[in-house]
Amino acid sequence: MILSRRHALLGGLSATLPLAAAQAAMPPSGKPAPAFYRMKVGDIELTAISDGYGVYPKIDGFVRNAPSDAVSHALAESFEPSDRVVIPFTTLVVNTGGKLVLLDTGNGDLGAPTSGTWMENFRAAGFTPEAVDMVIFSHLHGDHINGLRLKDGTQRFPQAEIKMPAKEAAFWMSEENRAKAAPGMMAGNFAGVERVFKPIMKNVTLFDWDREVAPGVIAVGAPGHTPGHTMFAIASGSTHFLAVSDITNNTALFVRNPDWAVMFDTDPEIARVTRHRVLDMAATEKLHVGFYHAPFPANGFITRDGLTRYNLIPTPWVNPA
Amino acid sequence: MILSRRHALLGGLSATLPLAAAQAAMPPSGKPAPAFYRMKVGDIELTAISDGYGVYPKIDGFVRNAPSDAVSHALAESFEPSDRVVIPFTTLVVNTGGKLVLLDTGNGDLGAPTSGTWMENFRAAGFTPEAVDMVIFSHLHGDHINGLRLKDGTQRFPQAEIKMPAKEAAFWMSEENRAKAAPGMMAGNFAGVERVFKPIMKNVTLFDWDREVAPGVIAVGAPGHTPGHTMFAIASGSTHFLAVSDITNNTALFVRNPDWAVMFDTDPEIARVTRHRVLDMAATEKLHVGFYHAPFPANGFITRDGLTRYNLIPTPWVNPA
Repeated sequence: MILSRRHALLGGLSATLPLAAAQAAMPPSGKPAPAFYRMKVGDIELTAISDGYGVYPKIDGFVRNAPSDAVSHALAESFEPSDRVVIPFTTLVVNTGGKLVLLDTGNGDLGAPTSGTWMENFRAAGFTPEAVDMVIFSHLHGDHINGLRLKDGTQRFPQAEIKMPAKEAAFWMSEENRAKAAPGMMAGNFAGVERVFKPIMKNVTLFDWDREVAPGVIAVGAPGHTPGHTMFAIASGSTHFLAVSDITNNTALFVRNPDWAVMFDTDPEIARVTRHRVLDMAATEKLHVGFYHAPFPANGFITRDGLTRYNLIPTPWVNPA
Repeated sequence: MILSRRHALLGGLSATLPLAAAQAAMPPSGKPAPAFYRMKVGDIELTAISDGYGVYPKIDGFVRNAPSDAVSHALAESFEPSDRVVIPFTTLVVNTGGKLVLLDTGNGDLGAPTSGTWMENFRAAGFTPEAVDMVIFSHLHGDHINGLRLKDGTQRFPQAEIKMPAKEAAFWMSEENRAKAAPGMMAGNFAGVERVFKPIMKNVTLFDWDREVAPGVIAVGAPGHTPGHTMFAIASGSTHFLAVSDITNNTALFVRNPDWAVMFDTDPEIARVTRHRVLDMAATEKLHVGFYHAPFPANGFITRDGLTRYNLIPTPWVNPA
């Protein structure tokens, strides 16, 4: 109604009024705000750091068990582009008071051209790579590990202790598994793990699930996406946060449709069961949750939509105190 | 499940493991990212600028026609505090290519202590007050106009042409209306308009609805909140944006429940009809809309929830190109 009125109006105006010529007194800036986001969990300070996003350039094949038109429709329903899939990347910095801890490291210089903004955002948030005491990985996919060591071998966090789930190490560092990996994505994952970790594996600590891996940070098993895929439960006082890592890829697809399986899951059926279990718990306990692949700032709350679907209610950028 | 496991685990651990003492290698920063947000509407660059938020300290009375427990429940459903109402403030900067235009100015130095962050965010976005060519007001409430002139009389945008809806000027500058204003809020609004505009009214231009008030910006009538309350339809090429101003206060309350009337509306029934009309159009036409009182970045898309309720789907912070 307004828009058609507007068109009629502008049609009328253009005959009589010269519109102001573009003088460009102030050129458009384009530059977005630095993408870091602070949260308090009791005495712990969390900072979400964006590493930008990747784009899977088509719909076909992205979801293993849903027709492409249903996938396009789900994206359009969330006002995302419906002819491709946008995959945001968000890591977490945990300042425990005593330790500065990274949960995953982003794509480094090996990701999509629309990614790789991590270091700029990390520095904008007031951090330096030299201050990082510990890096803890949720799993060993390239978009989580490549930020640890750049293409030229530079180790980005020279002071940091490095930790990974024991089950991830066992899977990705097995010569037997590597030998039987399908060419393409799986073989590439094995090569990527070797690139990042082989020269430094002697310095890596392995951890089991249900252990405290940093003060206030518990590793929680969430297998399926990969065999050792891990979430992090962060707690201080009576406040909790659950970093659910890759229990979903794009949240418009997989929070809304938890029975759908993304192409990247090692075991789609186990991943599906894990996804339902975690989303159900998040909704029931009204947990504050953070995703690795949700739109930045990539955290919020889960609500139910019927028996088998969920919504992600994102937190506002400017948090009430 | 995880949380109870965690408690058991930590209980066990505390008996055996000393947790790391707080060494505070890096103290918590606390400082959030500057709250500005860029959008492109064709060739026009929009920048949302946060002026922080206010807090109405109780529930009683905030919604004229709903019981307090229903209001609290609606806030809790959106994971907002349920014993008070958070009211975010967001203005828009429109760079038309030729003109730098402000839509409203925020609270200046007369708002709540949690507001008043506008100038810091505006400068962080790369703007200077001297570069502003035009200020256009949606209506004349204090949280929209006080940023134009500070308490000490300083005019913040010395080069700017100032425009307001003719119907707003007629209402708020009428001595007759002022004489019959109820003490308290309404009388305060009249005094606020006098404070800001009386010394500079000779420099103010009035505009009617359905006119282009800046290149690509059309003033659209949306009465009820105030008699001359105005939205702005922004268009360039085939791209549109509708700044809906105060057709709602807190969106968790009034997008979800458009029949509810906020205490600040001059004519609640006209405001209710306007709110339904605009939300209905936004949902039908899938318009990109910006609110003055939504959580920052305060823009997104409207979807229907049944026949008389709506949802606001916020845009992500990091926009896909």
